[in-house]
Amino acid sequence: MTYRAPVADLLFSMSHELGLAQGLEGGVYADLADGIAEATLLEAAKIAENVLAPLNRIGDRQGAKLTNEGVVTTPGWPQAYKQWADGGWNAITGPTHYGGLGLPALLNTACNEIWNAANMAFSLCPLLTLGAIEALQTHATAALKDLYLGRLVSGEWTGTMNLTEPQAGSDLSAIRTRAEPQPDGSFKLFGSKIFITYGDHDLTGNIIHFVLARLPDAPPGTRGISLFLVPKFLVNADGSLGPRNDVYCVSLEHKLGIHASPTCTMAYGEHGGALGWLIGEPNKGLVGMFIMMNNARLNVGVQGVAIADRAFQQALAYARERRQGRAFNAPGEAMSPIVQHPDVRRMLMTMKALTAAARAICLMTAHAIDVSRRDEDADRRLRAATRASLLTPIAKAFSTDIGVEAASLGIQIHGGMGFIEETGAAQLLRDSRIAPIYEGTNGIQAIDLVMRKVAHDKGDAAYREIREMKAVLGAIRETDAGAFGDLAPRLDDAVDSLERATAFLLENAKSSPDDVLAGAAPYLRLFALALGGIALARGALAAHRLIGAGDNDPALPARIATARFFAEHIAPGSAGLELSVTRGAASVNSADFALAG
Amino acid sequence: MTYRAPVADLLFSMSHELGLAQGLEGGVYADLADGIAEATLLEAAKIAENVLAPLNRIGDRQGAKLTNEGVVTTPGWPQAYKQWADGGWNAITGPTHYGGLGLPALLNTACNEIWNAANMAFSLCPLLTLGAIEALQTHATAALKDLYLGRLVSGEWTGTMNLTEPQAGSDLSAIRTRAEPQPDGSFKLFGSKIFITYGDHDLTGNIIHFVLARLPDAPPGTRGISLFLVPKFLVNADGSLGPRNDVYCVSLEHKLGIHASPTCTMAYGEHGGALGWLIGEPNKGLVGMFIMMNNARLNVGVQGVAIADRAFQQALAYARERRQGRAFNAPGEAMSPIVQHPDVRRMLMTMKALTAAARAICLMTAHAIDVSRRDEDADRRLRAATRASLLTPIAKAFSTDIGVEAASLGIQIHGGMGFIEETGAAQLLRDSRIAPIYEGTNGIQAIDLVMRKVAHDKGDAAYREIREMKAVLGAIRETDAGAFGDLAPRLDDAVDSLERATAFLLENAKSSPDDVLAGAAPYLRLFALALGGIALARGALAAHRLIGAGDNDPALPARIATARFFAEHIAPGSAGLELSVTRGAASVNSADFALAG
Repeated sequence: MTYRAPVADLLFSMSHELGLAQGLEGGVYADLADGIAEATLLEAAKIAENVLAPLNRIGDRQGAKLTNEGVVTTPGWPQAYKQWADGGWNAITGPTHYGGLGLPALLNTACNEIWNAANMAFSLCPLLTLGAIEALQTHATAALKDLYLGRLVSGEWTGTMNLTEPQAGSDLSAIRTRAEPQPDGSFKLFGSKIFITYGDHDLTGNIIHFVLARLPDAPPGTRGISLFLVPKFLVNADGSLGPRNDVYCVSLEHKLGIHASPTCTMAYGEHGGALGWLIGEPNKGLVGMFIMMNNARLNVGVQGVAIADRAFQQALAYARERRQGRAFNAPGEAMSPIVQHPDVRRMLMTMKALTAAARAICLMTAHAIDVSRRDEDADRRLRAATRASLLTPIAKAFSTDIGVEAASLGIQIHGGMGFIEETGAAQLLRDSRIAPIYEGTNGIQAIDLVMRKVAHDKGDAAYREIREMKAVLGAIRETDAGAFGDLAPRLDDAVDSLERATAFLLENAKSSPDDVLAGAAPYLRLFALALGGIALARGALAAHRLIGAGDNDPALPARIATARFFAEHIAPGSAGLELSVTRGAASVNSADFALAG
Repeated sequence: MTYRAPVADLLFSMSHELGLAQGLEGGVYADLADGIAEATLLEAAKIAENVLAPLNRIGDRQGAKLTNEGVVTTPGWPQAYKQWADGGWNAITGPTHYGGLGLPALLNTACNEIWNAANMAFSLCPLLTLGAIEALQTHATAALKDLYLGRLVSGEWTGTMNLTEPQAGSDLSAIRTRAEPQPDGSFKLFGSKIFITYGDHDLTGNIIHFVLARLPDAPPGTRGISLFLVPKFLVNADGSLGPRNDVYCVSLEHKLGIHASPTCTMAYGEHGGALGWLIGEPNKGLVGMFIMMNNARLNVGVQGVAIADRAFQQALAYARERRQGRAFNAPGEAMSPIVQHPDVRRMLMTMKALTAAARAICLMTAHAIDVSRRDEDADRRLRAATRASLLTPIAKAFSTDIGVEAASLGIQIHGGMGFIEETGAAQLLRDSRIAPIYEGTNGIQAIDLVMRKVAHDKGDAAYREIREMKAVLGAIRETDAGAFGDLAPRLDDAVDSLERATAFLLENAKSSPDDVLAGAAPYLRLFALALGGIALARGALAAHRLIGAGDNDPALPARIATARFFAEHIAPGSAGLELSVTRGAASVNSADFALAG
């Protein structure tokens, strides 16, 4: 089954679902004028469909291997990476001063969906490099930037994030890796890191590790963590490669999915110390790391969208081909393609609508990031930064959750064939399952949302979203279109539920944090249902307007149908989620697990 | 991580959640008096925990292999099977005339949960033998019974179901395997079957295949399908084994999970014809096959419960051990076990409550089967048969769906470790994913529920359930217990939603079958939420009474808490499901898939 990049869907979402005041090619997106976005996505589609997608299965079956010469990726991987990087795809958002194109995050987010749908295990590598680029750009000295940034931007080298240690997964305060200052201003690192994605590989000539460690005099906890740059090969002042540094991959994990992406245990300093350089200020390493994490969080969300869309495409192709039973309205006696059976349609529409909503949320987050960087007005930049910060945990958690749900539905639509590995549907479920876990588990995202993003500004940012949602609902109610079905009342209910749940959180965040935390995950889902449903409704409104203006693109009625399906079948979960948030804490927190099991 | 059979949970559910009028040891369960049920489950626990569970991992890693001598199972498997069958475990419900114990289906269902939780891939083999026993017992001639039944009951031989062909998966009308009558009254079979579980193996000296095929003069479609018994080795009149029959496993599938369970492509008659014997009447093979299927459907539902419980046990053990972060109410500075974090508690309670509800539904179905066979009153037997028939698709689909959900949550609770195969949580997700597919996909279960089980008797059976639910709600409202929280109003809502959705289905089943089918799956889920919620509430009522009577079993308050959690966090999904059923058909059936993908 071939992957087809959903270029039209991405462009429609970017143009019509995000509520861009001046359209895709105006305002902060002047550099997307003249169809730059479309042209870029069409080029991305080509390499994704023809180079990356065909390597996805072999990557699953012949995962990365650890050899005496380090980690070796799947056959074909290094060539594909070179072709991809040579195409300039790593450099879309990179700073122009260092060879990047400086294009919007929005465009790169759309490209990221395409890469990850074609081949998630492959695309993880540049995904992490992107985070590294931002951390360097924001926090490193000019000297370090000059030495490293250009080649990370071009993709000649890749970057990694080294946070996790066995005792320090979600809780970074427990990090023990230590960094000893050297007379020349560098540091020697000693310690061990686990779960390091692409910690070693043969795609590029050098790998730049970004490592959390403690200085000798560091205070305990998260206030004593510093961020270091540790190259695999030392880099001479002239940019040439020096000797091998003392950092090695010592083992690979045997994982459920993304087999082609090496998950490394890294040993630092087992042969005298790994040379590293401080990024940013001592003991303030988490600031730089959070820049990398935030970037990665959105992009991991995009992985959820990507897998969901790939699963949908594959399931739809199968459902149109496979004949079983006769649909009620089918003429003759022949078996019908299963796409004609209502329950299969329901599953397909569920996949499609969840994917579309999550895609809109991810693109919306990228848009907020762009405004926060590109708008000429400082107030608008600040507000957009707050918005991006609010939306990021929703984009990450909701999208990765629905990635797993869609992949599982994709298997179900294939029936028995879905359980057979050769079909490929099973790989999507296996690959998708990591995304709700890494870059901050979805539980952590939910905590971040309620405690930091909603409660810390007394709900300002959240209520701003709710007000915007209500404005869209007003426009929908004014548009009396039969094709909208129950879209308006169902989204009304969802937004009202979100508003009441938000009020509950704000009332209780200080006095009863445990009660608020008990409802954090349902609240995040509720927020996503309202946000995603409204984004699709915005698209439906635009489609309705375009049809009225004579546009006969046959995809437009389908976009209205998807928005309607989301509102009628998925958004109604809001009522239950509201109850979980507002009335459910006692039965979570009083549960007694002392005896069970 | 060791599996512990939940004997106390099973006994509590059997005693208190099913609404047994005369208690577990009265009425149709006279043979369970004197603690027979508990004693049996405790013995089952021993062999499950000590023999079957330890083989689960190796079975996953060293799955069954096809060799020149046929299929070879995982090392240790044949010895474990022999020990298990020698213990008499295959014979619990078997007819006493053929060496069975003739005990209730309820007891065997509880045992099945234990076997499948310990080792699902192993337990599939006897699960299918059970179906074969029932088909033989009901439809075969005395001669065939005498030759085969005893050794299937004892487990000396195993049975298989051979339905699926490449073109005939869910749609059995498309079956092409043919059976040619021989002068001696036997038949020669020719054809190919796929997805045959344990179609070949080395656990027993013979394998008895139950095969759907067409006679030469058979009418087309499902009215021309006959059922045949085809032994791997022919059986002489004295019971000794004769020559090898012409049926062979020609390949094994490479599957997502249950690696130790061989999924065979079977070739019949490639060397002259596979000798077979007709079971039941010509062209009425589906009757016998549905007996096997119905039995298997309940037991596949039980697999969902089993995996969910195993996943819960493993996740709970990890959550009590693993320390990350400090819980809000934790004293001191040390990291807290993650079981103290509200979001982890929420996930654990979700797993626990879903498992408990599905378990109650499966046991309730088994209870109805027992009443249909054992009650002295013919009317009650008939009503119970109708009830079993109504509940079976719910037990199958809901339980297998929550099996996947719980396994996925189990991975999430483990964080990064959950994605590592050695942890074992990933195997549970991989294994669980087949259960919503085989023995009739869950979509087919939903169609069966709405079109056959609910609509065909004008809702009589469904409304009887709803009336019983309301009676329990009445009792709950009379019991003013603070520990019940919002249990009563939330279950009230759920039952009301079910009642309205049922009325909608009955009004539209004939006139708009496509509208009804579009809501079939949400209706099944809605029915399960009400049914499961009420069963747990019945248990909560019993626990409340027992506590009031001075019983200080510390598990009793936990049972109330589980019922309350289900009502407060899971049952509220009913409102959305009702809307999907009653207002959602248009957006399912009007979806246009012609363009997408």
